[in-house]
Amino acid sequence: MLCDVLLANGVDVCFANPGTSEMHFVAALDRKPAMRCVLGLSEGVVTGAADGYARMADRPAATLLHLGPGLANGLANLHNARRARTPMLNIVGDHATHHLELDAPLTSDIESLARPMSHWVGRVRDAADVRARTEEAYAAALSRRGVSTLILPADAAWGEVEAAAPQPVAPPAPQPAPARELERAATALRGGRKAALILAGRALRAGALEAAGRIAAATGAALLSQTAPRTARGAGRAVAPRIPYAVEQAVAALAGFEVAICVGGGQPVAFFAYPGKPGRLLPPGCEVIELAGPGHDLDATLEALAGEVGAGPGAPFARGRLAQRDIPAPAGPLDADTVSIAVARALPQDAIVCDESITSGGRLAALAPSLPPHDHLMLTGGAIGIGIPLAAGAAIACPDRKVVALQADGSGMYTVQGLWTQARENLDIVTIVLANRAYAILQGEMRNVGVNRFGRNASRMLDLGDPALDWCALANGMGVEAGRAETVEEFTALLDAALSRRGPFLIEALI
Amino acid sequence: MLCDVLLANGVDVCFANPGTSEMHFVAALDRKPAMRCVLGLSEGVVTGAADGYARMADRPAATLLHLGPGLANGLANLHNARRARTPMLNIVGDHATHHLELDAPLTSDIESLARPMSHWVGRVRDAADVRARTEEAYAAALSRRGVSTLILPADAAWGEVEAAAPQPVAPPAPQPAPARELERAATALRGGRKAALILAGRALRAGALEAAGRIAAATGAALLSQTAPRTARGAGRAVAPRIPYAVEQAVAALAGFEVAICVGGGQPVAFFAYPGKPGRLLPPGCEVIELAGPGHDLDATLEALAGEVGAGPGAPFARGRLAQRDIPAPAGPLDADTVSIAVARALPQDAIVCDESITSGGRLAALAPSLPPHDHLMLTGGAIGIGIPLAAGAAIACPDRKVVALQADGSGMYTVQGLWTQARENLDIVTIVLANRAYAILQGEMRNVGVNRFGRNASRMLDLGDPALDWCALANGMGVEAGRAETVEEFTALLDAALSRRGPFLIEALI
Repeated sequence: MLCDVLLANGVDVCFANPGTSEMHFVAALDRKPAMRCVLGLSEGVVTGAADGYARMADRPAATLLHLGPGLANGLANLHNARRARTPMLNIVGDHATHHLELDAPLTSDIESLARPMSHWVGRVRDAADVRARTEEAYAAALSRRGVSTLILPADAAWGEVEAAAPQPVAPPAPQPAPARELERAATALRGGRKAALILAGRALRAGALEAAGRIAAATGAALLSQTAPRTARGAGRAVAPRIPYAVEQAVAALAGFEVAICVGGGQPVAFFAYPGKPGRLLPPGCEVIELAGPGHDLDATLEALAGEVGAGPGAPFARGRLAQRDIPAPAGPLDADTVSIAVARALPQDAIVCDESITSGGRLAALAPSLPPHDHLMLTGGAIGIGIPLAAGAAIACPDRKVVALQADGSGMYTVQGLWTQARENLDIVTIVLANRAYAILQGEMRNVGVNRFGRNASRMLDLGDPALDWCALANGMGVEAGRAETVEEFTALLDAALSRRGPFLIEALI
Repeated sequence: MLCDVLLANGVDVCFANPGTSEMHFVAALDRKPAMRCVLGLSEGVVTGAADGYARMADRPAATLLHLGPGLANGLANLHNARRARTPMLNIVGDHATHHLELDAPLTSDIESLARPMSHWVGRVRDAADVRARTEEAYAAALSRRGVSTLILPADAAWGEVEAAAPQPVAPPAPQPAPARELERAATALRGGRKAALILAGRALRAGALEAAGRIAAATGAALLSQTAPRTARGAGRAVAPRIPYAVEQAVAALAGFEVAICVGGGQPVAFFAYPGKPGRLLPPGCEVIELAGPGHDLDATLEALAGEVGAGPGAPFARGRLAQRDIPAPAGPLDADTVSIAVARALPQDAIVCDESITSGGRLAALAPSLPPHDHLMLTGGAIGIGIPLAAGAAIACPDRKVVALQADGSGMYTVQGLWTQARENLDIVTIVLANRAYAILQGEMRNVGVNRFGRNASRMLDLGDPALDWCALANGMGVEAGRAETVEEFTALLDAALSRRGPFLIEALI
């Protein structure tokens, strides 16, 4: 019944890491060949892949997780999915209801674990409750645009239900921002003050982004963006530069704005707090209009606002222009810049770029408007270790598009197990490991707190070079072919080879 | 101040995976060379190693984790530590207090995540609160024998405190079971009914176990054990066979007992519930005396009970007799049995056996009484993925003892990153990966629910053979030397070589 509800609603991929309490559900999945089951060897792979899948497929995947500890292992990437507002439906097995009072070794408070990273949490009461509760979980994932976690006790899974053919659930469609708020934003844009249109979430998808570009062109507002799960990039698309991560740079980028209209998320805030630095990044006194949040229809909101300011469909906007062939070949040592330039020169049409490059993004964002249209997927919640599974999920959603994953080495290790899933499913992914052999971002943060010379303890916690990770061996050990590059020439040759074939390949770029 | 409180109380090892919000604490650790900081590349390594360390050192380690997602990644092994009643002190960084209201991307409800897997959860209010709150966390870890999780906001970490030299904290010592309960147990043992003395937790340590052996010898009670974090095994020790995992076998092992005296834990229950099978494993009508739990002094409890039944120090007990040299060499194909026999024949004196062999334990438990004295560490909470980090922690606690880790391949993958820590710290560990290339326990559980022929979906979720993991490549990729064995002869040769040198080595046994 649970499978039938999922399949009736188009949920036909289940990322799984099952255990004993889910065996009846596994047996049921075995009778439903329409459901594609994808195994992850750790649960961070499962939830990260479900996030990548839904970002690209625009419909939720299911996950299958084993009791509290299985859920716990997947929570970090559920945190990212929650911040990305990715629809997802987690099925978490639990002991049979009557077994809970015995406090058997695997018993834990699953609800308490699930709530911080879920928009909806529910528990199936018994077999008769499976249909209604699964429909509720699915509807919540869609209507709230977020993570639903459904706890399935073993006795509910092994109980009998009446045969029935579930019908699709139709959750209420999201609505645009209210007319009053739209009018307020339009008035602000017409008022001659220095304005910023700040996009987040689904406002970075192609349609919404184009409408935002028209608004900016018609009103003179600056177009900016915050971290977003999926950004339409490349030639023909409007360009919304990202507000920098570093507080000083962010404050400088936002200096002088008198009004900020935020679409898809709230006003920009600092990722971390620092002594004496601001948390809110807009200048004091700047009027903030939070026009529409993740629950609104952002396409309709931005089209309506565009209409209000005389920038309806067909109006001009500043767009990227394809100039990929004019990007000069990278020269000099292999580093974040030269890697990113080489990637930019080779990026194919309709690629999906999964970006967990952290400190090693180089120049890719700056070059993106000159590249063929592509999608850019980003770490949304700051819980590192999403890149490898995110790429796997995106590749399953879009088997005809090339996935290029830019992966920092430190964060890549948290869910390195995802390479095995890439091999098992023969996914068309080129993973580029930017191997600086350090938690480079933390070395920078140590300097931010005034420590410039590291002693033994700090070095031992921030430096990954002893022993050096051999990413080619790790990839080979999980069935993924790999090559190592120490020069720009070696990197370019490996990249060309990897892009010209199908299937997973990993390039370890020693930067 | 936080470091000073830890060091004043003998907590001088910190397993860490830090992030930005903990940079002030990292800077403080850098000024305290007496604290040994051990980096894990994922948080499951950090918490599993802290568990292994405390099981062997008999004092807590600290962990350092990064906000909610960092804690979440470590929760599965915290679950195991909670079930093992391992004292542990987790330091979890959080945003500065004033930053929380901004709901920055990494914000989450850390308390909700921590509570299910912790015995004590607290949050430092400000810098002036650091000392008292850390002392409270430490005292709770000791007095409750369990997991303390202390949340440290960044502003508390960067605030100023008065210099002071913290003094050791003296939490109340555990007490033996009350005299009335001891009298009840002694009366039951003298009453002529068929009795079982069922040990769990610290009742499996050498001293308590010997007292239990004397009680059993004097009264005719059967000596049995439940899953325990650390069991004293080998020649000279009393033998307390483990109640089997499978429900039918457990019920058979306990059939006929009229009274059960449980020391160190509650009465035995089934790990999982199954339709039509019992949850409580003792026969109906069996009197259950839960004499002492994990919070009691179990040595004193069992000595007192021994005295009551005339089996004080010096009384005889059935003990293992060294016959290691008489174990016949294994013959036939390399499988769980032959691997375990080869390990038994070669196991050195005072070895620490870390056992996450799951379905592949073979005959080691049966042979253990014939081996030199050693300690056996086991998966306590059923959250798989503890073996590799557990071994690392045990090796750090006991640098002069050889660690032999029996590791199932499926569970090994969850925290495979721990091999890097083994290499970095040059830990004296021989890891034996029992590579059956399947979630074999789940294949058995599928048969338990009546499915004997697996279709594509079940196969894809229970079979790890496509592609086969290359554990030697994985180990090499993290700096650990490794070799593969396909025959008993190859395995024995690799084992002998690995045991004769120091440092980490991995043997992939294709069984």
